[in-house]
Amino acid sequence: MTFPEPVPGYTHDDPGLPPSPVTPAELEGLLASVLFGLADQEALRLAGDVLSGQIEQVLDVWYGFVGAHPHLVAYFSTPQGEPIGDYLGRVRARFGRWIMDTCRRPYDERWLAYQHEIALRHTEPKKNQTDHADSVPHIPLRHIIAFIYPITATIRPFLAAGGHDAEQVDAMHQAWFKAVTLQVALWSQPYAGKAW
Amino acid sequence: MTFPEPVPGYTHDDPGLPPSPVTPAELEGLLASVLFGLADQEALRLAGDVLSGQIEQVLDVWYGFVGAHPHLVAYFSTPQGEPIGDYLGRVRARFGRWIMDTCRRPYDERWLAYQHEIALRHTEPKKNQTDHADSVPHIPLRHIIAFIYPITATIRPFLAAGGHDAEQVDAMHQAWFKAVTLQVALWSQPYAGKAW
Ligand code: HEM
Ligand code: HEM
Repeated sequence: MTFPEPVPGYTHDDPGLPPSPVTPAELEGLLASVLFGLADQEALRLAGDVLSGQIEQVLDVWYGFVGAHPHLVAYFSTPQGEPIGDYLGRVRARFGRWIMDTCRRPYDERWLAYQHEIALRHTEPKKNQTDHADSVPHIPLRHIIAFIYPITATIRPFLAAGGHDAEQVDAMHQAWFKAVTLQVALWSQPYAGKAW
Repeated sequence: MTFPEPVPGYTHDDPGLPPSPVTPAELEGLLASVLFGLADQEALRLAGDVLSGQIEQVLDVWYGFVGAHPHLVAYFSTPQGEPIGDYLGRVRARFGRWIMDTCRRPYDERWLAYQHEIALRHTEPKKNQTDHADSVPHIPLRHIIAFIYPITATIRPFLAAGGHDAEQVDAMHQAWFKAVTLQVALWSQPYAGKAW
């Protein structure tokens, strides 16, 4: 990891984190729907090794993508449309942690609790609070779902850069796709309420 | 196409279909987020040619997947948990049309209007109505998002079955992934309301 420790606002291991409203049975259902199994856990461990030295480059690609699209960078900007450098930078460090967490953390109740925290940080109740940012109040759900595509497609060259054979790269990439889809499904909870 | 025409309950070309609440600008944003361009349109046309003779086999895989998972087949069942054969069959025919529409229809306002209709048919206001089915009242959003994975992963062998080279198969598969992600983003609208 190339980030300073501790990462400001990163509270994954905070014992005061409230539990997720998502039940273990609901998580099981989602894991089954995305066909997530033991082989995917192993592939993600390997992906973590491959990605750990490339986090800054991955973030450069993603931040480049967001920065190139006014309809996305708006959510890191003031209501008047001025990008907030400090906000972008602090979230970037947590985003780096998230890449490693997605690969290395067990998907247990603590992880579920932080997933819920991340979900809330995209929505009205918690956006901007962690970084005391003077930005717009929430991120529309549609953008988060659509982001599954670029977050999945753009990781592939980085997964391939470790010199593994095509089959292993593919296994890492499929596991990544599953993990991202799973997390977006979890993050939709505060948006959908009872219809989640 | 191997389905009888007209397909019961399929109202894509019904002039009485209400317009979508999604604006052309919102659609543009989503297309940009999933990196959907002209090359993807062409790749989907080709995918349509490759898939058109395999629709029943694709549906066998998807229905097999749903049927194997109690937490999914429940939504095609009575509240007591009895699968409803007639409902499964009628939706299957429309699902077949949807595969071809995803590949061949222009993503214009009429398409957007039917996207909204499909969205509503997954939710409380419209589920069961089209087929007069005695099933549970709505499908939770999380399952629809999670389904992006199996609907994308399982199509690949069918795209590869047309004898195209690896690069063309990959282009078709990426375009398919984008199109499915885009549609799930659109379908989340009735679930998220103002936060969509
Ligand atoms: C697949 C979709 C997405 C993923 C994986 C993702 C991931 C993340 C992560 C890991 C964080 C930091 C969480 C933490 O505080 O520890 C974050 C925060 C944030 N994301 Fe996303 N994100 C996604 C979609 C989006 C979209 C589409 C936007 C809109 C441009 C966006 C804007 C933001 C903002 C503004 C924050 C800071 C929220 C705050 O104030 O705390 N995200 N995201
Ligand atoms: C990527 C995700 C999904 C796609 C692409 C998809 C596609 C479709 C399509 C094309 C239809 C027919 C639309 C029409 O009436 O013309 C449909 C209806 C339906 N789908 Fe989905 N679906 C998805 C997720 C799910 C999930 C997760 C379930 C739960 C098992 C589900 C259950 C149903 C049911 C019960 C209907 C019939 C709704 C009615 O009463 O009219 N779908 N879906």
